[in-house]
Amino acid sequence: MRIRNIDLSLYLVTDRSLSRGRSTFEIVKAAVQGGVTCVQLRDKKSSTRQFLQEAMSLRDFLKSLKIPLIINDRLDIAMAAEADGVHLGQDDLPLKLARKIVKEKMIIGISVESVDDAVKAQTQGADYVSASPIYSTPTKPDTAPPLGLAGLIQIRNAVTIPLVGIGGIHLNTLEPVIRHGANGIAVVSAIVSAVDPEAETRKLKQAILTIRNAESQ
Amino acid sequence: MRIRNIDLSLYLVTDRSLSRGRSTFEIVKAAVQGGVTCVQLRDKKSSTRQFLQEAMSLRDFLKSLKIPLIINDRLDIAMAAEADGVHLGQDDLPLKLARKIVKEKMIIGISVESVDDAVKAQTQGADYVSASPIYSTPTKPDTAPPLGLAGLIQIRNAVTIPLVGIGGIHLNTLEPVIRHGANGIAVVSAIVSAVDPEAETRKLKQAILTIRNAESQ
Repeated sequence: MRIRNIDLSLYLVTDRSLSRGRSTFEIVKAAVQGGVTCVQLRDKKSSTRQFLQEAMSLRDFLKSLKIPLIINDRLDIAMAAEADGVHLGQDDLPLKLARKIVKEKMIIGISVESVDDAVKAQTQGADYVSASPIYSTPTKPDTAPPLGLAGLIQIRNAVTIPLVGIGGIHLNTLEPVIRHGANGIAVVSAIVSAVDPEAETRKLKQAILTIRNAESQ
Repeated sequence: MRIRNIDLSLYLVTDRSLSRGRSTFEIVKAAVQGGVTCVQLRDKKSSTRQFLQEAMSLRDFLKSLKIPLIINDRLDIAMAAEADGVHLGQDDLPLKLARKIVKEKMIIGISVESVDDAVKAQTQGADYVSASPIYSTPTKPDTAPPLGLAGLIQIRNAVTIPLVGIGGIHLNTLEPVIRHGANGIAVVSAIVSAVDPEAETRKLKQAILTIRNAESQ
């Protein structure tokens, strides 16, 4: 059965090509030490076998720490590696078909670029949505124009399921994302390209907790 | 339940990049008119969504004709499109894990480059193997050295499950492959790059039937 109440506070999305020559496993290990709460393995370049092997290594490592492992795009790899979930973009499998295959056994997250995408994802049973890109980002140059905070707020108001922001979010830009109702932030380069990924993760996590503490008072 | 006694006599493997600008659907339609008995959709370049859409179109077309549709590599797409099977290379999902996911519902074919690969595939429950490459081929330049007819014979003697040869097989080279015990031939460029794919398929099919008739007398 899939994990309920997944903690999306600080959600790492991997990208080997931005990792300055370090392995994905090394980055994830450092990020976990620093406090990430969820990990998405994204790999558009490796063979299926290599992607699977990395997924299985991460699954073994993260399982004991109770940190969910989400696989980008490849539902077959998520199933074979017994990951906690799959994250689907608008060019990946449609949510309805993916849910039909995995039933309630897996978390399914959906990338959304508009209010319509988000409402559709919620209606069809997504466990969370990631709104992208919040800011412009060099990580995925093929994405839609930035939603900005106005776009984020519209999506937040349109759905009740958990929501993370992604795209151009780092230490200096995360505060308004959290303040405007995102359940967390998803980051790629802010962690994977950091000189010290563990230290950078710790700073990001501390910043999120500080904002939340201030809000709850 | 998966199709038993799949007819592998003339097995088309698609490749859009070798199709001279024609769509995969157009090639498949012509090949079906010409007499192919099985179709494998292979696509290493499209997005998951595009690959799925093509798989679904082909599934709808082929289903009424009772010609099996096999998806290359992507078990998730095979499942979502309700294809008849998946074909796995040595860099794709391991057979054991794929079988665990789809149980007996799907045909699973395995690419083998050696007797060891073939025996392992049979032991783990493959429905058929494709021995590759029989001859050297420009279609997949990254493959192992050609097995030749000697290699094909060794594999044929090592396993009892259905076997097709692939790699460099066309009208002038198919005869010894069939004579040495292959249940069929798999072709890419012989059909997809033909000026007239339907006519070329018909010639290939006729040649296979002629050899079989001569052998059974």
